[in-house]
Parts: sequence; structure tokens; C-alpha cells
Amino acid sequence: MRFCDLIIKKRNGLKLSEKEIDYVIKEFDEGEIPDYQMSAMLMSIYFQGMDINEIKYLTMAMVNSGKIIDLSSIPGIKVDKHSTGGVGDTTTLALAPMVAAAGVPVAKMSGRGLGHTGGTIDKLESIKGFKTELSLNKFIDIVKKVGASIISPTSDLAPADKKLYALRDVTGTIESIPLIVGSIMSKKLAAGADAIVLDVTTGSGAFMQEYKDALKLGKIMVDIGLELGKETVAVVSNMDEPLGFAIGNSLEVKEAIDILENRGPKDLRNLCLVLGAHMLKLGGAAKNYEEGRSRLEKILKEGTAFNKFKEMIAAQGGNTKVVDKPELLPSAKYCTKIKADINGYIQKIDSRLIGESAMLLGAGREKKESEIDLSVGIILKRKVGNKVKINEDLAEVYYNDSEKLKEAKNKLFSSFVIGDKKPKKLPLILATISQEGVKEWE
Amino acid sequence: MRFCDLIIKKRNGLKLSEKEIDYVIKEFDEGEIPDYQMSAMLMSIYFQGMDINEIKYLTMAMVNSGKIIDLSSIPGIKVDKHSTGGVGDTTTLALAPMVAAAGVPVAKMSGRGLGHTGGTIDKLESIKGFKTELSLNKFIDIVKKVGASIISPTSDLAPADKKLYALRDVTGTIESIPLIVGSIMSKKLAAGADAIVLDVTTGSGAFMQEYKDALKLGKIMVDIGLELGKETVAVVSNMDEPLGFAIGNSLEVKEAIDILENRGPKDLRNLCLVLGAHMLKLGGAAKNYEEGRSRLEKILKEGTAFNKFKEMIAAQGGNTKVVDKPELLPSAKYCTKIKADINGYIQKIDSRLIGESAMLLGAGREKKESEIDLSVGIILKRKVGNKVKINEDLAEVYYNDSEKLKEAKNKLFSSFVIGDKKPKKLPLILATISQEGVKEWE
Repeated sequence: MRFCDLIIKKRNGLKLSEKEIDYVIKEFDEGEIPDYQMSAMLMSIYFQGMDINEIKYLTMAMVNSGKIIDLSSIPGIKVDKHSTGGVGDTTTLALAPMVAAAGVPVAKMSGRGLGHTGGTIDKLESIKGFKTELSLNKFIDIVKKVGASIISPTSDLAPADKKLYALRDVTGTIESIPLIVGSIMSKKLAAGADAIVLDVTTGSGAFMQEYKDALKLGKIMVDIGLELGKETVAVVSNMDEPLGFAIGNSLEVKEAIDILENRGPKDLRNLCLVLGAHMLKLGGAAKNYEEGRSRLEKILKEGTAFNKFKEMIAAQGGNTKVVDKPELLPSAKYCTKIKADINGYIQKIDSRLIGESAMLLGAGREKKESEIDLSVGIILKRKVGNKVKINEDLAEVYYNDSEKLKEAKNKLFSSFVIGDKKPKKLPLILATISQEGVKEWE
Repeated sequence: MRFCDLIIKKRNGLKLSEKEIDYVIKEFDEGEIPDYQMSAMLMSIYFQGMDINEIKYLTMAMVNSGKIIDLSSIPGIKVDKHSTGGVGDTTTLALAPMVAAAGVPVAKMSGRGLGHTGGTIDKLESIKGFKTELSLNKFIDIVKKVGASIISPTSDLAPADKKLYALRDVTGTIESIPLIVGSIMSKKLAAGADAIVLDVTTGSGAFMQEYKDALKLGKIMVDIGLELGKETVAVVSNMDEPLGFAIGNSLEVKEAIDILENRGPKDLRNLCLVLGAHMLKLGGAAKNYEEGRSRLEKILKEGTAFNKFKEMIAAQGGNTKVVDKPELLPSAKYCTKIKADINGYIQKIDSRLIGESAMLLGAGREKKESEIDLSVGIILKRKVGNKVKINEDLAEVYYNDSEKLKEAKNKLFSSFVIGDKKPKKLPLILATISQEGVKEWE
């Protein structure tokens, strides 16, 4: 097989066979196919796409580049959750203990933040002592004992995807549905869960800015999950404004604690309940979505998820005191505010600009190697649809270093659009995709 | 400027500015842009194309990566000629002395063969002692004295194109009109001619297998030439069957000598007369095409081009005796034949298969580094439209090594399609493109 002929085949819009895709991923992973040929293949895939079979072969080839984690020693149906990324998206931190409290084991591997989006592992590292790199045995032990554990991916989790993603990142080939599906689903399948719940975000802060693209991505991911024998549900959620009020690592941990204390922002709470209810249903802990949701509402009310979070922190070596006293989390030295310059209703809060503003403060990484400041960030004081008067607060800015403060505040300020009329707001959950089909909002 | 943003810009179908294209070519040439990013850019160009301005910027950026050869010390209008490549295409060898004999100076840089197509420099090296690598001063001196010289390109002739072509060759990005135009025209412009005649081949043995693609390529090349201040004429010629009878280096030199002796295959003679007539017109040696053509017919009849060829060979250190005694050229040890297995008319002779067959015999290079055998090749005994009876010769095969002979003979045999009816044959010249517009065959 000459690799250049396979590039030309895909470039010309033909389908690659299972054998050909296996060859491509294996040889690339082993360094036999040079990056300059692989990037031409990636760009051909960007333009010509892949059908469901090709995506399936791609996904499995990447799974098979590493080891599939064996979670079979953990009793029960293990349900994994993945979000395509957002701004202020603290769901995993609250969701894992909620679902575990309902008896569904959560063995989750999460990533770090990159660019304008945050990452669960960074957030967890706001908790003093919390270890995010554990051996597989320790990880499984914690899930068995506590019901939930969240760690960084092990290095043998779909290593070909890691290599491929790094190349996509610098060659303009991130935004390709088959490549996104292959990347996400290979990691989920390699992580060994029995069922998967996906949060496909859309809007200004998401990779898929258009609803129709997010819906398409969700459908294909559910199809691939089902094809590969994993029950899969996807929700398409609106990430046009940030989720919740907090953006920044320790600020988001505080907000997750609020949720677990049965308080906190409505949208974040709602998303946790929706995703959690699907996880409970897939995990066999609820007959249907409605039952799952009311069970989780009860769990939040009774504080069992709050306690489960503490148990998980303790098991991973973290300081559990922060859960009772969130003021023990890293906090920034200074706070300043941005205020409205006219009266009106908030029409729009651009998530991407907010994420970029937080990155300028130091909450996010511009490059993979960048250091981040866990304490800094933004607290929104107004959300879309809220009324605001001139000189009232729009947001608080927590910072340590004033070097890029002005730029960050400008970006933050420009993310707010204020107008006369109360805007029509889209619901948080735009669609639910499962084996039974697609249910869009009414 | 972040190069990845430029990849995304082109990927999304936007136009690159002159500054951006200059940046891309300069940084790539200097090794600042890695191959894996450049190949993603090339594939984006393959899919999204470039407009006439972008192609102009690309061409000039590649010209400016090296030196523009100064031919101003040679009196007269210097006319260059380029063919997009074919099988058995010996035109340059006959054309250069023909045009020089008419008083138009020919200072030509030619390439080597690659894949199924041959190269003029290889063919010339069949002539014992003939030097194809000369200093620029020596080259110019020969053109001044003799009127014609053909050498290998100097290393500073559009070096960025050389690097880019090598990358395109292994990344499935050869067949892109803007990249083909940029590559050809940058070399022609850097080579310093005042006017350019292009032979755009089409059919089974050509890069542009479809006539409409070849026509499009020709039009864009003429536009780019005119935009950059060089009078340019292109003909689209039919390379569906090989040109002439001979395929292979010394065999083609013999055939060029036949042309110069006012004999030889009709199609090859005709193409030489057509291209030459345009060169004479652009070079100011003929008022119009018709006058140019009849002048060249006279030159062939009187043998002045034949003598000019000898002068050029002598000036470049070659053995001129081969022109009078072509049997002194390298000749293969063995000859075998392939014969018709049915009665009928030749419907088709697939040029690409013939080229590949000759390559298997050793006449061409599979890779740039491969050694070639100057003596081997194929002589066609029938061309499209000819009648043939069972057991009559289709072609002769000249070989030294029987290792791949069977495979070569099979390929050669399969290139002939024989059928009952006399086929309708397309003319050799399908279109002529100039400042005045496009003239297609009737």
C-alpha cells in the first residue's frame, strides 16, 4: 500500500476500507507515515468527509492503538460522560458525585483546558493535594469504594488520537466531524465504560457554533456508539452564553459546590440534572429520564452528592475542608468590576470572548505548555435576558497580575450586548439524540 | 501572521493576499514553515483553488525565491517553450535547432524524466560527451554563437518551486491547476525568456487527462504570462496515443534526427511545425503563424536545422557523428516484438501504459534517484487508425535485462485496443490559446 495513493483516493472522494484505515492509523502511530503526508490526508478528510463505516474503522483503529481499560471488576453499568467543551462548564465536578450517589459508578478520565475552554483536571487541581494522576488499580479501587473517581487519561489511552490531535491542531483540521467523532469516541471506548452520555455544545463558545452542525455531530456520535455496542445518548446544549456565573478554575469549583449544596445557577443545575438523568437511565438506576431526574433532585436536596464529592476528594488525596469552606480554595488578590454603560436587557454574552478574557487573566492556556493561575477568573452578575441599569455591575474580574487586565476587561465588556427589548431566549437543551431518534426543542 | 490561520483562511475558501502568499513561499523556502503545515495548505489549495491574482502572486513569489536569468546580452526576442509532458515527446530536440535556424534564439532549460514521462535532458545524454550542466555564461555564449542551447536548470532557478514540487509529489497535490501554473510559469519566468509557447498535452498519457481541464490550464497559463508581461501562446495537443513511434531516450534522439532530416512520423513533425511557427511569430521571425510554418518547412527541406543541431551538440561537447550515424547512439542488446492477436483497426494506444512499459524496461525513473538505461525502449509499428492483421507487428521492444520484460510486454500489449471499425481520430492540435482568445478545433 502506497500512502500517497490513499491520500489521492480520499482526495477524490472515494471511501477507505477497514484495512486501509487500520494501516493509516497504525503506520502513523508508529512514525512510519510522516506528518506531512498525514496532514494532507487529514485535509482530504476535512473536505471529503467519511461515511459511518469509515468513522467506525477510524475510531476502532485509534482505540486499538492503545489499551482498552478493563472496568469489569467494578460492579454495575459504568456510564461515561463527555462534553465537546464550553465556557464555565463545571458539570462534571457536580455530576460525578450526583450520579455516584444514585448508585451508578463513574470512572471518568478528563482533560485539561486549552484555548478559551476550561478543563476538569485543572479545576480539580484547585483542591490542595488532589491527585489527578493515579495508577489504574488505584483508580478502579476508588470507583469501587466511593463510586466515583476522575483522573487524567493514562498515556496508553488511544495514543494515536493524541498524536493525531496534535497534528490537527496546527494544520487547520480540527473542525472535521469524522475526525472529531473519531477522537472523542475512541477515547470514550478505550476508557472502558459500558454506556456514554454526550453533551454536544453549540453557540458562540462551542466548537460547533451552528446548531445544525452540533446536531449532525451528535447524531453521528450516537450512531458510532451504538454501532460499537455502547448505548449512547447525546444532548445538544446551548453554549451561546457561558454556563453558570463562574469562569475560572477555583471559581468553578466553588460553583460546583453550590450545585451540590442544592443552590447555584439554574442553567448549570439544569444541565447537571439532564445529563445525570440520562446517566441514571443508562446505568439502570432509573426506569426513565423523569424518574432519573427526580431521583437526582432528591439527592441534591438530601446532600448525599455533597458528601460523595468529599469522599472522592479524600480518596484522591485532596483537602476535603474546601468543600465546607470554599474560601480555602486559591483566591485572587484583586477584584475589579465592569459596569453597564446604558440601560436595557442583556441580549447576548459571547462565550468565546469571555473564555478568551479569562485566558488573558491567566485562567486558561494559550499553548499546551502554558502555566495557569487557578485563582483568577470572572463572575457574571448578569445573564442573557436580565435587566440592567447604567452603572450596575455586569461582571466581577478576579486577578493577580495587571499586565493584561485592560485587554481582558475590554474583551469581557465587549462580550455583553445590551438592547431595549427583552430578548427571546433559546432553551438550554436544544435536542436529545438516542437510539429512539432525535427529539428537538419545541 | 500565524501560518495555521492562513491554512484555515484558504480552507474556508477565502483569497490570500500578495503579502500572505509572499510570506508562505518565503518562510517555506527558508524552512520556517514545516512540511506538515505546508501540505495542509497545498491540499486546501487543491480543493479551494486560487484566483488569477493569487496564482500571479504565487508565481512571482517562487520566481523571487531565486534569481531571474538575464538573457539581455543575447540579441533578439528569446522565446521559450514548455510541454506539460508526454510519452514519446521528442519535440524539444527537433524544435530548438529548427527555431534557431530561423534566427530566433533558443535558451532553454529542460528537465529529466519522472514516472511514465520522458525528459529532454536524459535524451540529450544519449549523445556521448554532451554536457547538460553548463555555467550560465557558457550557456549564454552558446546561444549567442549557435542560436540554441539546452541545459539542466541551475539550482537557483525558482528553488521554492523545487522544494514545493517534491512535497506535492508525495502528498497527492500534483493535480491542482493553480499549483501547476505556479510551478511551470515561475520556472519559465525565472529562465528569462521574453515570450513563451506552451504545449498543454491532454489524453491518457498526460497529467490533464480531460480536454476541458487542459484547456482551462492553458487559458490560465496564458493569462498569467500576459499579466506578468510575457507574450504567451498555448496549444492543447492530443497525447491520447504516444507522439511519434519511438519511446525511450536514444530511440527518441534518432527520431528527432529523422525530423531534422525532413522525414519521421507525421504527428511529431506536425507538432514541431505548429509550436515552431508560434515561436517564430512571437520571436519576430514571421508575420503570422502561416508564414512561420512555411518558413520551418523550408528549413527542414534545406537541412539547415539538421546542421544547427550538430552545431549545438558540438558546442556542448557532444559527439556530432551520431547525427550522421544514429547507429552510434547507445543501442540495446536484444529486440523482441509484440503482435496482434486479431484482425482490425487500432482503436486506442494508451500512452500511460506505454510510458510505464518503457519505465519497466529501464527507460524511465520510478524515483528521482533511479538510474536509467538510455538504450532501451519501444518502437510502435502501428498507430491509432492503422489496420492490422493477426500476427502482424504492433511494436518492437528493445531491452538489455529480461527481469521485467514480461511485465513490460504485457503492459505494452494491453495498451493496444483493436476493433472492427476504423476509429474517428481527434486532430493533434485541439486548441490554440493566445492574447486574441481561444481557437478550438472544428
